[in-house]
Amino acid sequence: MIYLDNAATTKPSNSALEKAQIFNSENFFNPSALYVGGLNCAREIKAAKENILKNLHATNHEVVFTSCGSESDNLAIFSLKRGSFLTDKGEHSAVYQSFLELKRRGHTVNFINLNSDGTVNETELYDFVKNNQVDFVSIVHVNNETGGINDVNKIARTVKTLNKNIIFHVDGVQAYGKIPFSLSKEIDLYSISAHKINALKGVGALIKRKNLNVPPMIFGGGQENGIRSGTENLFGIKVFDYAGQEKYSNLLENYNRANKLNQLFREKLDKNLFTFISSENCSPYIFTVSAKGVRGEIVMHALEKEGVIVGNGSACSSKNRFSRVIENCGYDNLTLDGVIRISFSTDSTEEECLTAIQLINSTVEKLKGKLG
Amino acid sequence: MIYLDNAATTKPSNSALEKAQIFNSENFFNPSALYVGGLNCAREIKAAKENILKNLHATNHEVVFTSCGSESDNLAIFSLKRGSFLTDKGEHSAVYQSFLELKRRGHTVNFINLNSDGTVNETELYDFVKNNQVDFVSIVHVNNETGGINDVNKIARTVKTLNKNIIFHVDGVQAYGKIPFSLSKEIDLYSISAHKINALKGVGALIKRKNLNVPPMIFGGGQENGIRSGTENLFGIKVFDYAGQEKYSNLLENYNRANKLNQLFREKLDKNLFTFISSENCSPYIFTVSAKGVRGEIVMHALEKEGVIVGNGSACSSKNRFSRVIENCGYDNLTLDGVIRISFSTDSTEEECLTAIQLINSTVEKLKGKLG
Repeated sequence: MIYLDNAATTKPSNSALEKAQIFNSENFFNPSALYVGGLNCAREIKAAKENILKNLHATNHEVVFTSCGSESDNLAIFSLKRGSFLTDKGEHSAVYQSFLELKRRGHTVNFINLNSDGTVNETELYDFVKNNQVDFVSIVHVNNETGGINDVNKIARTVKTLNKNIIFHVDGVQAYGKIPFSLSKEIDLYSISAHKINALKGVGALIKRKNLNVPPMIFGGGQENGIRSGTENLFGIKVFDYAGQEKYSNLLENYNRANKLNQLFREKLDKNLFTFISSENCSPYIFTVSAKGVRGEIVMHALEKEGVIVGNGSACSSKNRFSRVIENCGYDNLTLDGVIRISFSTDSTEEECLTAIQLINSTVEKLKGKLG
Repeated sequence: MIYLDNAATTKPSNSALEKAQIFNSENFFNPSALYVGGLNCAREIKAAKENILKNLHATNHEVVFTSCGSESDNLAIFSLKRGSFLTDKGEHSAVYQSFLELKRRGHTVNFINLNSDGTVNETELYDFVKNNQVDFVSIVHVNNETGGINDVNKIARTVKTLNKNIIFHVDGVQAYGKIPFSLSKEIDLYSISAHKINALKGVGALIKRKNLNVPPMIFGGGQENGIRSGTENLFGIKVFDYAGQEKYSNLLENYNRANKLNQLFREKLDKNLFTFISSENCSPYIFTVSAKGVRGEIVMHALEKEGVIVGNGSACSSKNRFSRVIENCGYDNLTLDGVIRISFSTDSTEEECLTAIQLINSTVEKLKGKLG
């Protein structure tokens, strides 16, 4: 099997799993317990937080562990109890659906248009902030469907120059562990997830500016400084920690490798068969194309039979015919219908990709031939 | 080390971990993905839900996976958007703090008094429901600090006879996998947690009556029928599933074994040194006593040096001097000051317990001797 749906989830790292195994055996204690075993576990969680901050060169921030990127996004967005909320049309459903909920609750929400690669139209964003009362802005770092990279540090800085009181949140789920980045002080809140970087499903984090008030969504024992109650997912947090260290110790090298794989696809995928949706400026880890004329789902299933796993749009929004995000990039229905997403991890190899390219070309050629 | 703080957390079961390992290797897919691997993972989650319902002989219910017992409690309690909320003074902080939050938000909340073993005063509860408008009731199944067992099926039935519109929630975290129990149709919501039954921290579930509307706290991809978005914690859910199967295949045998260990403590713990707080009717898995005259924390640390790990009150509420729950059982400060909680798992052995009893007796005798 050649797995190229790493933006949906990744295979957990064996070495990270093995290293963390001790937290399911000798060191399995409740991190709130006051005996040495418990205190050690609490210290291990603290170390995991420090490593995340180090990975992002963050000095003005602190970490709150959550159960997933979606929880982090929700915790960030609902931290502001009233006001005017602004985002873009390319957000992951965790942000998008939270905004729809804010709207149902009677808050003002607005959505800025996208460029064709899924990045936010910055001019429109700044104009909106100039001309309207805005209290909260949420912009995705790397678009999970196109790979489009928003320069969130620059955007946050510009937005705050226009209105210093705005709270600025970034969904960094597809960026953390992949894109070289330093978290600037202008970003108040930054959401990340473990299972996108070869750690486990069920762990995320919200990185928040120190002194920023984030009220809890889950009340109880007061873990995570009262922001997120519930016994900490010790094993999951440590797997996340170790996987993060693995990614960041080779970040640039990994990035360049992903870029090389991405370029292989750009060069060798048959341009007569495919429209490229991801631009050259997108994250190298995500390459989205349309097999214009053949439905993405049919391509996906045909490729599955050949042993190649690709995504069709976001797994999370798999119930709709068209991807809301790609639709908002401005493509016609024929293009939207044929979307497949190819996404890499640090495990992906050149050899796999060359085989996959050949199979993707031949499969789609065959499917198009059948259609006439 | 003799670990007797299993009400705080348990050591994950090796066999459950090993069996679930495949979900971190071959079957690591995103359960929302539409290819065979993803569909298989979704099916595995569905099977885990069916097993939970089977374990509880529940036919009117369905399962929503969450990240912990605290999240389950919160999801249940905040499912009612307005009204009058009733609980008791012996609840875990996940329920208690949620009620305080309801109060801060302007809702009516009331707390029923406890019996001396931590169970709810049923007469007072029924009188309150008779004489007041009540919309939501939350009663813990097994008190996490005393082991006091509330007959929640009977209580729910009685409460609903008095007012059929009441929504009835039960925190079953210390009961699931331990106490023989069939979930009746009168219980609308039942919270459980994985890490209390030798599965992993970071997984819980809310069991809800079918057709009961539970609005989401976390918005996003629409997982868990839209009630709980976020990529499912596949590995954690399967470890929970397998650990649950292990517990329920020997439930009565385990219960009797715990009872035997509990009786050993009741017989052999020096009654001149200790006041027993847990009654004979409490869960056999929890035995709470007071070393009246010596602080529980000091006993705990002294025992730690001897290789015996016990809890002092709930790990979650370890910041307060006295346990709120035991205080509400009506004990004086001297007794409250000396509380230690001994709690068993299915791993606990008779030999361990005999050694622990000896060490607990001698340690407390020594500490009391020093005090004069």
